[in-house]
Amino acid sequence: MTQRSTRAKKRMKPVAPPETLQIIGLKTLPEIRPGDDLARLVVQAAQREGAGLRRGDVVVLAQKIVSKAEGCIVDLPRVKPSLLARAWARKVRNDPRLIEVVLRESQRILRMDERVIITETRHGFVCANAGVDRSGVAGRHRVTCLPADPDKSAKRFAAGIRRWLGITVAVIVSDTFGRPWRLGLVNVAIGAAGLRVLEDLRGTRDAYGHPLRATILAVGDELAAAAGLAMGKREGVPAVILRGVRFRVGDGRARQLIRPASEDMFR
Amino acid sequence: MTQRSTRAKKRMKPVAPPETLQIIGLKTLPEIRPGDDLARLVVQAAQREGAGLRRGDVVVLAQKIVSKAEGCIVDLPRVKPSLLARAWARKVRNDPRLIEVVLRESQRILRMDERVIITETRHGFVCANAGVDRSGVAGRHRVTCLPADPDKSAKRFAAGIRRWLGITVAVIVSDTFGRPWRLGLVNVAIGAAGLRVLEDLRGTRDAYGHPLRATILAVGDELAAAAGLAMGKREGVPAVILRGVRFRVGDGRARQLIRPASEDMFR
Repeated sequence: MTQRSTRAKKRMKPVAPPETLQIIGLKTLPEIRPGDDLARLVVQAAQREGAGLRRGDVVVLAQKIVSKAEGCIVDLPRVKPSLLARAWARKVRNDPRLIEVVLRESQRILRMDERVIITETRHGFVCANAGVDRSGVAGRHRVTCLPADPDKSAKRFAAGIRRWLGITVAVIVSDTFGRPWRLGLVNVAIGAAGLRVLEDLRGTRDAYGHPLRATILAVGDELAAAAGLAMGKREGVPAVILRGVRFRVGDGRARQLIRPASEDMFR
Repeated sequence: MTQRSTRAKKRMKPVAPPETLQIIGLKTLPEIRPGDDLARLVVQAAQREGAGLRRGDVVVLAQKIVSKAEGCIVDLPRVKPSLLARAWARKVRNDPRLIEVVLRESQRILRMDERVIITETRHGFVCANAGVDRSGVAGRHRVTCLPADPDKSAKRFAAGIRRWLGITVAVIVSDTFGRPWRLGLVNVAIGAAGLRVLEDLRGTRDAYGHPLRATILAVGDELAAAAGLAMGKREGVPAVILRGVRFRVGDGRARQLIRPASEDMFR
């Protein structure tokens, strides 16, 4: 042990202050209704919970509350299913009205099977059921859809925070998506404002002087996933503050995280 | 504003203490060499940096340092490329020895093009170049491969921490993977010990009483992604402590995060 410790000491770099990021889940947001000012409600919840909101925070909003605030809710009894929706619903024993909403929210169908329809949403996101979701909304015959333009939603929220508190925060709107090859859902960014969502390290070098060739980090998605740890699904934490993140300020949009179909080997 | 505030107050839930998770990046780990006791080095770095290690922490280790400690390093001059490796290298103007290592680390090839080979590694992970990587290793003609059994690596690390400190921590070995449909790399779990990597919420209900049908959260990957925020690529933070995470203790393995090929619509 002694010899190894000496070696370890020799290799030791100078001590730096610990790099600490905080993930703070907000638990006291009220039930969100169409027309609600999310920025105000988040400011109030953060104050109430003793977290406050600070310059440089990243606020991650669950898609669900953004959709609710924007009224992206569909009453199924009002939906007239198309022939395709009815045919498919019969085949997989699902609600034809739900299938119809999924089709309407899509611009392209990638796969259809008994469990799920994988589509490209109108925004270009590839996900299950075009992001149409029954959970997390009151009423048995209502579903939420993704916000019409989640990047704009994020921008609007950031502007709201600026109005209420006079500070600038970065914003991510997140949703839980499945992925090929790996099981389980992870939170990804479907909307963003005030930060770069991709960190392009190409052209830089690693600690050994090797050029980093293929290294673009999906910072927006890692922020969303980190917030996902505090969100859970059952726990009623629809907004999360990430504090101490060294992100790059910029005019990033979550759409930049979409791989162009022409460069996608799996679409 | 007054009317809305009143409504907001009515909808207010009782205040709960803020739920705070910490992400602590360790910056002073020495250069890792084959045979190093990673547990000891992480314990020392955490002490040195004033973070310590506590019962219930999740330690996320970058694949790179695990591979180095386990000697998963290949000297390219010693590699004899196969005919396929040579043919492909000629076509895409790459190093045939590097291609050969990628092929050896794979059990199935999904796609080959100029930029990348997407394979199923011997463990079953689907990723670029079978996880073979030139960056982050000293010497121009050396590459690292994934650990032979990253779940076992995680388990061994947890046992090491138990030996050095007498406490139990959960462990994730992470690597940065690309994904279809979305740009940029994210950190995912390729090894795990001491926690469940999937949180299965099926059979439970959301706040409105709706059954959650398709909801399995990839907690292991969200932990890895959260750690990725502190790791970056250039910054020399190859180990991260996640503190305050409410994970489920269990005998999870990262292999459980692999979607069986038979259930994978995109393989």
